[in-house]
Amino acid sequence: MNKKGKIKTKKISELTIRRLSIYYRTLNVLEKLYRDTLSSKELSEIEGINSAQIRKDLSLFGSFGVRGIGYDIQSLKKALSDILGLNRKWNVVLIGAWQFSEVLVNSEALKENNFIITKIFNETSDKININDSIMVYDIDQLEKRIDPKKDHIAIIALPPQKVQNIIYRLEKIGIEGVLYFASRAVKTQGNMVVINQDISINLGMLTYKIMEKKQAN
Amino acid sequence: MNKKGKIKTKKISELTIRRLSIYYRTLNVLEKLYRDTLSSKELSEIEGINSAQIRKDLSLFGSFGVRGIGYDIQSLKKALSDILGLNRKWNVVLIGAWQFSEVLVNSEALKENNFIITKIFNETSDKININDSIMVYDIDQLEKRIDPKKDHIAIIALPPQKVQNIIYRLEKIGIEGVLYFASRAVKTQGNMVVINQDISINLGMLTYKIMEKKQAN
Repeated sequence: MNKKGKIKTKKISELTIRRLSIYYRTLNVLEKLYRDTLSSKELSEIEGINSAQIRKDLSLFGSFGVRGIGYDIQSLKKALSDILGLNRKWNVVLIGAWQFSEVLVNSEALKENNFIITKIFNETSDKININDSIMVYDIDQLEKRIDPKKDHIAIIALPPQKVQNIIYRLEKIGIEGVLYFASRAVKTQGNMVVINQDISINLGMLTYKIMEKKQAN
Repeated sequence: MNKKGKIKTKKISELTIRRLSIYYRTLNVLEKLYRDTLSSKELSEIEGINSAQIRKDLSLFGSFGVRGIGYDIQSLKKALSDILGLNRKWNVVLIGAWQFSEVLVNSEALKENNFIITKIFNETSDKININDSIMVYDIDQLEKRIDPKKDHIAIIALPPQKVQNIIYRLEKIGIEGVLYFASRAVKTQGNMVVINQDISINLGMLTYKIMEKKQAN
């Protein structure tokens, strides 16, 4: 019965964490629409996730809906933000995104989730136009300018062949986690968490849907 | 018994498609390592997905493993690539990625999955250094330079407030699908498939893992 106890011994899968992140995003939207409660059935319809799966995911963390009423959005959001670590500010340094930085700096999703971009590192630091609160440095200055006590996460948007070297340098600096845009795996000494954003997975979903649409017509 | 028939009537969820995309990526890697077969248990260990879920996903498409041997990698890969539409070339136009284009143009994942970047549209088209086979135009020229018969997909990497307008223009042009980097939803007339790559979901996974790691130490 003690499902809560199970978490400590059993690792939560990446896909479960992904689903929790997706639920969190949806709750954020619904809260803005002044909704108070949400049923697993509604959440299921919004996300296209089986409602039994949703109830299972949420019960893992001790969050139970009330029959006929559903989940209290505010407390569920709070529980998910605690689990996902979104209940605190994360300072983010951006490496190599050039003008794509503008996309990330202006991202509402990052701001809403407490991700604050504080520094940008580029190979051509003179070419960028970002607001004044963000410092722009040359990539040569990584070791000099990153303070692992203040800078928690790095996002790397460099060509794939340049990623591994930066990963090595960031791990030495002592940064906690890295998100990079590339499909190839990278090596670490095990002191840093690394996740990649593989655009081809989303493109696979896109092409599937294009074909599905064509079949329907 | 006719599980195949079920697909036509029941919509496959986004998360199922995502899992299939993930399986496909893994099979790609294993094929390069000269592996012939793969069990659902192994795939489960690699991806952190329940092996019963994997068997269920794959049986949906009529792909069944042989007990004690597993799945034939080549034929499973073929089946998945047929389902996901990765068995054909997709021409991709990139809009607004500036120097981030270099990341995408050099992406091995895109090349392996038959996504060919053919054109780039920028607000500052003179500042880019890309190989000669890719044409670079100003965003003003979208209507003039995109041929919906040849250009299937667009990737939009513009600041969020500029995305909706480009979506309208692309739908008028008649492009089939769009992937954009932003968390906000966009409106379409329903003639185009749209998917967003929401970086905050991956960042939520990253922070979860950072905290998990801290607890373990």
